[in-house]
Amino acid sequence: MATIGLIAGGGRFPLLFAESARRAGHRVVAVAHKSETDPELAKQVDAITWVKLGQIGHLLEGLRAGGASQCVMLGSITKKRFFADAMLDATGVRVLARVAVRSDDNLLRAMARFLEEEGVAITDPTPFLADRLAPEGVLGRHQPTPEELEDARYGLELARGIGRLDLGQTVVVKDRVALAVEALEGTDACIRRGGELAKSGGFVVAKAVKPNQDRRFDLPAVGPDTVVSLREARGRLLAVEAGATLVMDLPRMVELADKAKIVLLGLR
Amino acid sequence: MATIGLIAGGGRFPLLFAESARRAGHRVVAVAHKSETDPELAKQVDAITWVKLGQIGHLLEGLRAGGASQCVMLGSITKKRFFADAMLDATGVRVLARVAVRSDDNLLRAMARFLEEEGVAITDPTPFLADRLAPEGVLGRHQPTPEELEDARYGLELARGIGRLDLGQTVVVKDRVALAVEALEGTDACIRRGGELAKSGGFVVAKAVKPNQDRRFDLPAVGPDTVVSLREARGRLLAVEAGATLVMDLPRMVELADKAKIVLLGLR
Repeated sequence: MATIGLIAGGGRFPLLFAESARRAGHRVVAVAHKSETDPELAKQVDAITWVKLGQIGHLLEGLRAGGASQCVMLGSITKKRFFADAMLDATGVRVLARVAVRSDDNLLRAMARFLEEEGVAITDPTPFLADRLAPEGVLGRHQPTPEELEDARYGLELARGIGRLDLGQTVVVKDRVALAVEALEGTDACIRRGGELAKSGGFVVAKAVKPNQDRRFDLPAVGPDTVVSLREARGRLLAVEAGATLVMDLPRMVELADKAKIVLLGLR
Repeated sequence: MATIGLIAGGGRFPLLFAESARRAGHRVVAVAHKSETDPELAKQVDAITWVKLGQIGHLLEGLRAGGASQCVMLGSITKKRFFADAMLDATGVRVLARVAVRSDDNLLRAMARFLEEEGVAITDPTPFLADRLAPEGVLGRHQPTPEELEDARYGLELARGIGRLDLGQTVVVKDRVALAVEALEGTDACIRRGGELAKSGGFVVAKAVKPNQDRRFDLPAVGPDTVVSLREARGRLLAVEAGATLVMDLPRMVELADKAKIVLLGLR
């Protein structure tokens, strides 16, 4: 039984992680962010420390006190919010001063580097989440046409391409033409835009892991809401990277997709 | 005096090209597209043939009859429109059948390959447009701050990156974060989206040539309308690739930019 630290942001990921990790027999020591992290997390972990955004010194103490020499970072702490609301402690200022390019990834990498220097390694969360990752193949009842499969593969390739540039994770494709590419607006807004450009619907949405990040940060995630976005914009297929995309609630996703005649696909 | 063919789409480019090329002493033989190309073009060229979208055989005859053994393609013929409205003649069907991936560039490349096989080479229009390309440096009255210059360089690098993927040409950046990336929606819509995400404005728009295209197709272009889009979205700087971006009306652009306190920048 290993002790694993959990630096928790907002949303359901930290809770899913805690549940999966403890089910696998691990001890989970969380550092949670006030007004970001779901207070429910306290019930799902073995120890919890609450910090404000930017209190990196305090965060490190929390992990050390809990005996975690490795940890994962999960949940949303948007950069936008970070720069607006952060209460930097002295350590926080020191860490941020080293970030030259303020992209999400660079910010997180600087924080990871700092924690590693202090003896707490940031690790890939996916091994703890195996039962939450998208499987390969067709996940629901509906099968893709050969053209849709081709669009899905092309979309996934483009999504990796924009990920390599540290832009977004999502691309909307129809008939081998990219309709919309995600930057800061988020997956749902990107899907809506695709729907506006493909007035008759029938497009493919592909979501991929950024190839040059090591899966420690910002795993792509989908859930029932993603299917609802596709349905509303009249999308036809959702392709995700198998084995590397967090799925929030697969049974519910499949149910919604089957009903809306949407194809769900895990691709490698 | 060389004879140069002009395959003309919509918008002002074909007219600007004809004017510049004839001013430089060339004979211009145009093939224009009904309901796409400005009828004014007839007055600006030495010979003109009108075709419908997709009448590639007819187009080739027009160029040959005019004695053009090289030509340029300029002006908008959107792919969307092409597939909706094209009246393919037998040659058109033959050319299109060879296009596997229906991206803009691939479509144009297939057409260029066909014309070359038939003895009409598609050539880079920029040498004929030297007086219409963006110069290097600050073009108006307002200077960029060091941070804005950094954002502009970063944006141009990203714009080349998305161009390499055969996506759009435009990226909106603020504080080293990409806010919006263009796919099919067009430059103005991309700028508007950037403005919505950067509520306080002050962002940078960068537009670049697709690096792996040889400038024969789809040159990036800006004009007074681009400055108006920036002004409305409260953008602060427009960076274009010097020597490779068509400028529709530089004096008017500078006038508008100066008035709106927008920085205009040509970068290499």
